[in-house]
Order: sequence, then C-alpha cells, then structure tokens
Amino acid sequence: MLKNFPGLKGYKFAARSGAIKKSGKPDLALVFSEVPARCAGVFTNNQVKAAPLIVSAPRVHKGHCQAVLINSGVANACTGEEGLKNALRCAEITGQALGIVEDLVVVSSTGVIGRQLPMEKLERHIPLLPEGLSSKHVEAVAEAILTTDSFTKISFRGPSDEEGYTILGIAKGAGMIHPDMATMLAFVLTDAEVESGFLNETLQGAVNKSFNAISVDGDTSTNDMVLLLANGQSGGSEIRKDSKSAALFSRQMEEVCLDLAKMIVKDGEGATKLVRIQVEGAESDDDAREVARCVATSSLVKTAFFGEDPNWGRIIAAVGYAKARIDSSRIDIHFNDSPVIRNGLAVGKEDLEAAAKIMKAPEFAVNIQLRMGTGTAYYYTSDLTYEYVKINAEYHT
Amino acid sequence: MLKNFPGLKGYKFAARSGAIKKSGKPDLALVFSEVPARCAGVFTNNQVKAAPLIVSAPRVHKGHCQAVLINSGVANACTGEEGLKNALRCAEITGQALGIVEDLVVVSSTGVIGRQLPMEKLERHIPLLPEGLSSKHVEAVAEAILTTDSFTKISFRGPSDEEGYTILGIAKGAGMIHPDMATMLAFVLTDAEVESGFLNETLQGAVNKSFNAISVDGDTSTNDMVLLLANGQSGGSEIRKDSKSAALFSRQMEEVCLDLAKMIVKDGEGATKLVRIQVEGAESDDDAREVARCVATSSLVKTAFFGEDPNWGRIIAAVGYAKARIDSSRIDIHFNDSPVIRNGLAVGKEDLEAAAKIMKAPEFAVNIQLRMGTGTAYYYTSDLTYEYVKINAEYHT
Repeated sequence: MLKNFPGLKGYKFAARSGAIKKSGKPDLALVFSEVPARCAGVFTNNQVKAAPLIVSAPRVHKGHCQAVLINSGVANACTGEEGLKNALRCAEITGQALGIVEDLVVVSSTGVIGRQLPMEKLERHIPLLPEGLSSKHVEAVAEAILTTDSFTKISFRGPSDEEGYTILGIAKGAGMIHPDMATMLAFVLTDAEVESGFLNETLQGAVNKSFNAISVDGDTSTNDMVLLLANGQSGGSEIRKDSKSAALFSRQMEEVCLDLAKMIVKDGEGATKLVRIQVEGAESDDDAREVARCVATSSLVKTAFFGEDPNWGRIIAAVGYAKARIDSSRIDIHFNDSPVIRNGLAVGKEDLEAAAKIMKAPEFAVNIQLRMGTGTAYYYTSDLTYEYVKINAEYHT
Repeated sequence: MLKNFPGLKGYKFAARSGAIKKSGKPDLALVFSEVPARCAGVFTNNQVKAAPLIVSAPRVHKGHCQAVLINSGVANACTGEEGLKNALRCAEITGQALGIVEDLVVVSSTGVIGRQLPMEKLERHIPLLPEGLSSKHVEAVAEAILTTDSFTKISFRGPSDEEGYTILGIAKGAGMIHPDMATMLAFVLTDAEVESGFLNETLQGAVNKSFNAISVDGDTSTNDMVLLLANGQSGGSEIRKDSKSAALFSRQMEEVCLDLAKMIVKDGEGATKLVRIQVEGAESDDDAREVARCVATSSLVKTAFFGEDPNWGRIIAAVGYAKARIDSSRIDIHFNDSPVIRNGLAVGKEDLEAAAKIMKAPEFAVNIQLRMGTGTAYYYTSDLTYEYVKINAEYHT
C-alpha cells in the first residue's frame, strides 16, 4: 500500500500480467471511477499518432471519462486500420466488462511501435480486470504501465483542508522524453469537483511547467498523453476559476505534475544526474525557454554532466545557437551558487573546481543569467551516459 | 607526400608543434599563396563568435587573402577583449614574418573554449613558420589543425583538361558537427582564376550540399569557417558564371566539400557508421531537409544504427515530429533497397532481417519516400556509440 496516501474517493484500480509482455511482467491496467468523471487531456504533437490516441482524444474532448485501460509492451502505433479497430475493440471489451457506456472508456498504450496488439489474449484478459478492482491497487497500476522504466512514478497532494479533495498522479516514461511529451503517459486523478473549463486550463498550465519542460533525448513519441479525471466524490464544493481554492488546486496540480516529470528525467534511460537548467534575464519568457531547451538537449552538455566537468564552453555554445537574443559579454553562468563565467569570461581555477564539486551530486542546477530583460524559464534534463547508449542500442525491435 | 596529388600552383604549406598543445602534437599551420588570392568564406551562425572569426570575417568579405594561420588546441572563443587583441596580434606577426600586408592574413582557431592563446609561445613560433613553407606540406597542415579527430581530411579534384586548375580541400572536425558548421574548419584552395561573385556563389552552394548537410551531435560551435582561396596561378582563363567550365568547377567544388563533409561524419566522435538519410517526395525541398534533419539528429535513431537494428519506429517517430507536412499512411522507408515500411505499415520479418544485414556495413542509406510532392534532400549522420559518450565525458576543460 502506498505510504501516507490518504486515499481518493470513488476510484478503483486493477492490473494484470501475461496479456502482452513475454517477460510475464504486468502489462495491463485499469483505472475506474465509480461515477463518470469530468476529464481533460493533452496529447502528443507528433504527426504520427498511435491508434489509442486517435480513439481516445475525441472522447476526452467531449469532457467525460469513467475508465482508462492502459497496456504496456505494444504501442499500437503505425498499425493502420487493424490497429485502429483493435484500439476500439479494447475500449468496447472494457466497457462491456464494467457495464458502462463504451464512449466513457479511454485507451492508452506504450511499447514497441509497429506491432499489432495480441487481441486474442486481450479478449481473455480485459474481462478479468474488473474483478481485481480495489481502491488499494494504485501501485499495481503504476507498475503495469512501465516499459524501460526502472521505478514506478507516483505523486499525490491532499487532502486539502478547505475542500477535502486529493490529487493522485501516476506516470511512466524513461526514453523518448521531450516536449512535447515523448513516450510519456501520465494519469492524474482527483476526487474534487472541478468546473470543466477550469479543469482544462489547469491541466494545460501544469503540463507546460512540468512534462513540457523536461528532456531526456530530444525525441517525441507517437503515444504520449496526460489525462486528468475529476470525479467530484470528495464532497467539497465545485472548484471554478474564481473559487477561493482555485489557486491552491492549480498549484497542487503543478506540483504533482512536476514531481512526476522530475521522476521521469531521473529515470531517463541511463541517467545518473537530474539537472535543472534555469534561465533568467532573457528578453522574453519564450527566449528563456528556447535557451533552456538548447542547453538541456545538447549532447555535448549532457555528456559533460556525466563527466562531472563544468564545461561552460559547451553551455555557452548551446546558448549561442538558441534562436533568442543574447549578448555573450553579458552572460553569467553559475552551477548552483558557484560561478563559472561572468560577463562571458571564465572565472578562476578555484571557482571551476568548486563547480566541479557541485556536479558530483546527483542533482544540481545550472543558472544562466542573460541580462537582456526579465524573461525566465526552466528545463529539467539528465546526463548522457554509456548506459543510455547501451539501453537504446540493445533494445531491439 | 599526398598520393596522386597533382600539385597546386602558387601555394605553400607549413606546420609546427609545441606552440600550444601539451601533447607535443602539431598545433600551428600556415597556408600561403604566392600572390594575393580572391577569397570567399562561410562562418558559423552561432551568436557566440570566437575572436578569430570576428577578426577574419571582415577581411574575407573584402575579397582577398594571401595567408591563413590556423592553430589547434585553443579556440580563442569567449576570451573577451584580450582574445580579440591576441587574434589581431597573431595576424600581425604572420604578416610581418611573410612580408605581406597584415590585412591579407586570415586567422582561424579550434580547440578548448574560454582559454587565452599562449601568446609568449606564439610570438616565438609563428615567425618560424615561413622557413618551413613548401608546396609538399599539405598533409602536415591537415595534421596540425586536428583536435579530437582521428584522421586527416584531404580531398582534391583536377587538374581539369579545360583550364588546367586543381582544387584542394583540407578540413578538421569530429564533434560539435551540425549545420551550420560546428567546430569544423575547412580550407579549399584552387589555382583557378575565378570571378569574385561566382566564387562566393559556388562556395555557398557547395557548403549547403555538404557541410550544412551533416550532423554528428546537433551542436554548433563558435569557431567554424569554410574558406575558399582562388589565386589564378594555373594559367587558365578566368571562370565566370557564364564560362564553359563554370558547371564543372561548381561540381568539383561540391565534390571536394562533400568528400570532406563525409570524412568529418565518419570521424564523428566515436562513430562506427556513416549513414545517408535520403528524403524524397516531400512537399518542398525545405520540408525534405527538415525531415532529413530530424531523423539524422535523433539520438534514438543514432543508437539504433549503432545497435544495427532496423528500428523504423524511431525513424517514423522522428519524421512525425519534423515541422513538415507528412501523412504517415503514405510513407515508405528502405534501408538501401530493402523495405522496412510500406504505406506506414511494417513489412514482414524477412524484409526486416535483410535490412538488419544491410546495417552491418559501415556505410548504408535510409531512404524515406513521403509521397507528398517532389521535394528532396539528404543528410549524412553517424551512429551514437559508447565511444561518443566516453570521448565527450572524459574531454575535460
């Protein structure tokens, strides 16, 4: 049972093994709300969209969802008409098994691209999911949605004093991680009652500051989605944009999403470091974001993190190719509080040695001051390691 | 002596060791034309420009150059006023030593960012370069400009029957390679007499199809330049845009640049494969280029090349996040002539095995047919290997 988790009213969870993965690891999960929940979703920007997204996005956009079926092992992407038919059939079986309208079922997949779902097995396994439903099986679901991940990703906040609601987030993702949302699945559930427009707005805001501000390898995938369900079972009053509790709810949503996003970077394939790239003083927030992105995605910068070398030359070169207004003679860079360049010029040897020491920690920040304006942004990134190459060269289709 | 090299009229070469690198490897090179040559240049797009570029670009743009001083080991980038003064001083010493106008000297540097040139040593070493000048020291120059490169990069064409000119290209680059031109230096020399406007046009065209169509790690550097000198000493008539030999000259320039560019990718840090990403049937050449770029720079695709796995899922995911119009159900992908997907769907197991076999070769092509129009482009890229991580994590500032 999840430590300190206060529980979430009106949601149940189930997971199974043996439907898809040859390893026998859990590969099928079900999240069920006792009543239809209001929902919001953010989907991949990749032009190649997997079948489950084609099926689910319109359903989510209608605003209600009661069940989410998630499989790992096969992404059901690039599978043509047959893949689409299979995704629809999975939703249908789930709806029948739960006795709910099929249209309230959302399906989600992650795994190998280009392979069809093993429908014969799924026809047998999906109907067995409902009998395993329990409010306690949160970790089993978090486990069943993993692929190359090395740990489960769960975060929660609440219950709040005011409205008594709880927010629970479950995610997977360890490779192909990049805005906008590469092979990353996240399911955020709350028992709060939330007005639909505000629910959408809150999710988009939280995603921009979390899942869209992380990078492991710069690739984006065909299957990403972040889904938010709010079933209103906490008994508190409806949260609207002008509610007293609106700010708290938005902040907690952001926190849950950022917790999950940071776990995804930490679990980045082969990663040994979690690095925050903080950009200040850009001409605009967009400029800041572009600079942060260039630094966070540079293979040279990421290998220097792995080598624990405060190689600010690679950082400033990445700043220089960002499509943002900069003046190299104004740039300061610090590793945490330790300077490595001031006004575009190297600091002394002792400062560099102090920065090198900071890099030995599993988490640190690179703070970039541009002195062009007030724009600010951050990105979380990982280091690029032997293990990354190993995992991705040896993971065969 | 360079095998089969027919010689180049009116150019001399010299190189020395011990001026900068602690290893004692050659680190200083001089290219000298007996008469002022017409010149053209292409410089990095990085907003952070190294001192030698700030000094040299305006000189090149004036149209004439007689000597090129190149040092490796220190990039003289992010070195402020002092770096600028040092770059100017290097040109001055070179001009004095050769007895030519300082303004005809171009300086070029590659190496560690943020360190000042050891001027005391350079004051002693540069004046000793002219006495070593010889038409035979091409390879010594090619050797002296290397940093993390593992082999020298030289290509030549000619002499042509028509005008009797020769084209010689010398380059360095093995990391931070990406359009537009990351830590990449190339010097192309010809004894043809070429009209200035046509010289510039030819260089830009050749660079776009060569150095700007390669990627090792997606980073661009502060120091890149391609310099083209034409000293008119072959004795042939001047080549202008409407000359009979114009097309041949342009083609040979392209060939020399592409030869060098491919050598740079082959020598990409830790690379074991040279892969041509060929995109056909895009809506425009720009779209084709964008798709080729996304595939060529994907870390996941590049690790799959290393793993010799025809992981077309990663390729199509990269195609999908390109900012180009695509329709995944129209896409065919071949490894050389062997299909891996047709109309966006996986081919059978035997075809995939054939593709895997093709990937065992050190060079192969990924051919992507989009069926959206007639746009076409190519990119050369390398695989991403353990060795890449090793070199870049262990290369310390």
